[in-house]
This record gives sequence, structure tokens and C-alpha cells, in this order.
Amino acid sequence: MSGKGLLLVISGPAGSGKGTVIKSLMEKSDAFAYSVSATTRAPRPGEVNGVNYHYITREDFEDRIKNGGMLEHTSYCGNYYGTPKKEAEEVLESGRNLILEIEVEGAENVKKLYPEAVLIMLLPPSFAVQEARLRGRGTEPEEKILERLSRTKEEIPRVVNYDYIVYNYDGGAEYTAEDIISIVRAEKLRQSRNDQAAKKYFE
Amino acid sequence: MSGKGLLLVISGPAGSGKGTVIKSLMEKSDAFAYSVSATTRAPRPGEVNGVNYHYITREDFEDRIKNGGMLEHTSYCGNYYGTPKKEAEEVLESGRNLILEIEVEGAENVKKLYPEAVLIMLLPPSFAVQEARLRGRGTEPEEKILERLSRTKEEIPRVVNYDYIVYNYDGGAEYTAEDIISIVRAEKLRQSRNDQAAKKYFE
Repeated sequence: MSGKGLLLVISGPAGSGKGTVIKSLMEKSDAFAYSVSATTRAPRPGEVNGVNYHYITREDFEDRIKNGGMLEHTSYCGNYYGTPKKEAEEVLESGRNLILEIEVEGAENVKKLYPEAVLIMLLPPSFAVQEARLRGRGTEPEEKILERLSRTKEEIPRVVNYDYIVYNYDGGAEYTAEDIISIVRAEKLRQSRNDQAAKKYFE
Repeated sequence: MSGKGLLLVISGPAGSGKGTVIKSLMEKSDAFAYSVSATTRAPRPGEVNGVNYHYITREDFEDRIKNGGMLEHTSYCGNYYGTPKKEAEEVLESGRNLILEIEVEGAENVKKLYPEAVLIMLLPPSFAVQEARLRGRGTEPEEKILERLSRTKEEIPRVVNYDYIVYNYDGGAEYTAEDIISIVRAEKLRQSRNDQAAKKYFE
């Protein structure tokens, strides 16, 4: 994968406020682009095809995996989630930073394939706050909430595989978006991403 | 060394505009503090003791090295330069980020002793611009200018030992200062600096 854009992976448990933070990020800067993931799960009420996800069939998804059409994919709660490769490459080649909003396993896979990717774990301030946020939503049955909290307990220790941990405080989505903008600005200045700097200096 | 402040090492060849950038940084944020280095070299016209440097004798400097009173020190053009340890520790313990403006060798030594230090190399846009800036100053004899340029040629390849490379464009000191502020904001969010995050999340 070529291009100057940064491959930015953002994960976060249910209740971390990923959606709000990414929306704020897109409003603050046009240097970011969001790659819409594909999934085999059914749309939730209010979700729009091609906006929240590309909702595709299991058969279509498995065909794309076989044909190398997915940059990454993972399976979660019985459904496939993945990033169509063509769309991702178009963004990076345009020089914009590509945001992938993916689960822990997908993030780890991306890092293996693209070590230059930047992995950010977005977290609520604490597990207690996360639980309160999920119950406060009132959109999901108790069983689903418990499943998400249980999943979080498994996933949090894998935060060691991430490059950054960003806490999203109540009402703080804008500040959190600025944290991410700072991370991207800093990452682009990293010596390891500019290994021809010494040579170029004397040109 | 304890405390929550970040140990920030800023190096840059003559003509990189270190002084202007650090001044802008201090004006923009009170989270930064500058540790005044000690040196055995004579003050240049306009330089003030305790502001630009602590100007001390060779005997005094060597005593401090022996007694562990220097966080780091180096020798450059026949003079000692170093960071008094007590002053540095006071800043870090106050929670502010400590800026050390030091030469390449000193920076490398700091990184060995304090791997958590963040090393930033500030560069003019190119060697040609650096040369033009030095001659434009009109404050130094040609011999000194050639010595500085020759030193730069030796030092630039050692930029691989730095964490970040920041270019300081003409008239761009404020932007450069914001680059450094972004680096600090991002560094504080690094997973490797928050290795108790998973544990704390469930507390």
C-alpha cells in the first residue's frame, strides 16, 4: 500500500463514544477520511447502508476474502466485519489519513500486515462509566449489554498491542478528537517515518 | 528521577532557530519549563548569566561531574556544557515538561540514562538554508561559521538516534512550537507510558 496518508486504527469498547469522536474529528479536519466497513450483520434501527456499514451477504463477504478484496476482516458475535481494500487504498493514495474503526482482533491483524499503522484504543474513563453509558442508552436488551461488558473484560488486556490509549470523558468528544489530531501530527514527525531525512537535508 | 513531567531533549544545529522556537513554546504553554544549562564557555555579547547559561569555571564544572551533580554533560569546541541535576529534577517533580536544549552527544547520553526521554531534532529546511541563516547573522567570523557547518555534516546522520524530526521554516517558529506541543500531547497518550491502564480501568 503506497501513499502518504496515515493508516489510523481506532478501536474502543461499546460505550467508548467512537462514533461521536470520529464525527468530531471529521468536522475539525478534512485531512481524515473514514473507510466504511463491510459487515454481514443486520442494520440496527437508523443505520444506513454505505454510511454506517456496507451491509453485504455472507456469500459476498467470503468471496471478497478469497479474492484478496479485504484489507482486514474479523468475526464478531457471529458476523463478519471487514475493510474493503480498494476503498482504503484510494483514501491513502489521496494523501488523507484513513480511519479504520475496527475491533481488537482486526486491529492486531492490521498491525501485523501494516506495521506503520497507528493503533489507538479509545476508552471510557473507567469500566464503571462504560457500564453506566451502556445501560443509559436503553436501546439494547440486558443480555446484549452483559455480552458487551464481558467482551470488554477480555479485550482490555490486549490494549498493550496498541500504540496509544485515549480516554473519552463525558462531554469531551471534541477534546478527544484533538488528542487524535495531535497523535497524527506527531506521528508524521517521527524519525522512523522520515528515514531519508539526513540524505534529503543535503540535497 | 520521578515525577510526571516529560523529559524533552531538543537539539538542532546552529541556525535551526532553537532559541526562537523554545521562546514561542514557553509563551504558548506554562506546562513547559526550561532548564538552564551550565557551561564553561565565555558569554557571547548580550547573553545573561542564569538566563542563557550558568557560566561557571572549569574547576566548578569538573567538581559537579565528580559529585553526580550533572544530569548530562558534554564537551563541545573545547568547552563543557551540562545540565545541573537538581534544577532538572525540581521541574519534573512539579509535573511540568522539562526542555533540555543540548547537543547530539548529550542527547544520546540522556536517552541511554533515561529511555523515557523524548528526543527532538530541530532542523532548518535544508543545509543550504542553514548556511544562508548563519551568514545572514553577521555575528560570527567565517572560520566559526565553517566550523559549525562542518559539525552539522557530522551530526545530521545521528538524527537516527532521535525520536522526532521537526523542520523550522523561515517565519514558522510558532507552527514549529505547535508541532512540539503535539508531540508532547501524543507522547503522554502512548500506551508504553501507561502500562497500568488495563488494571486501572477496572478499579
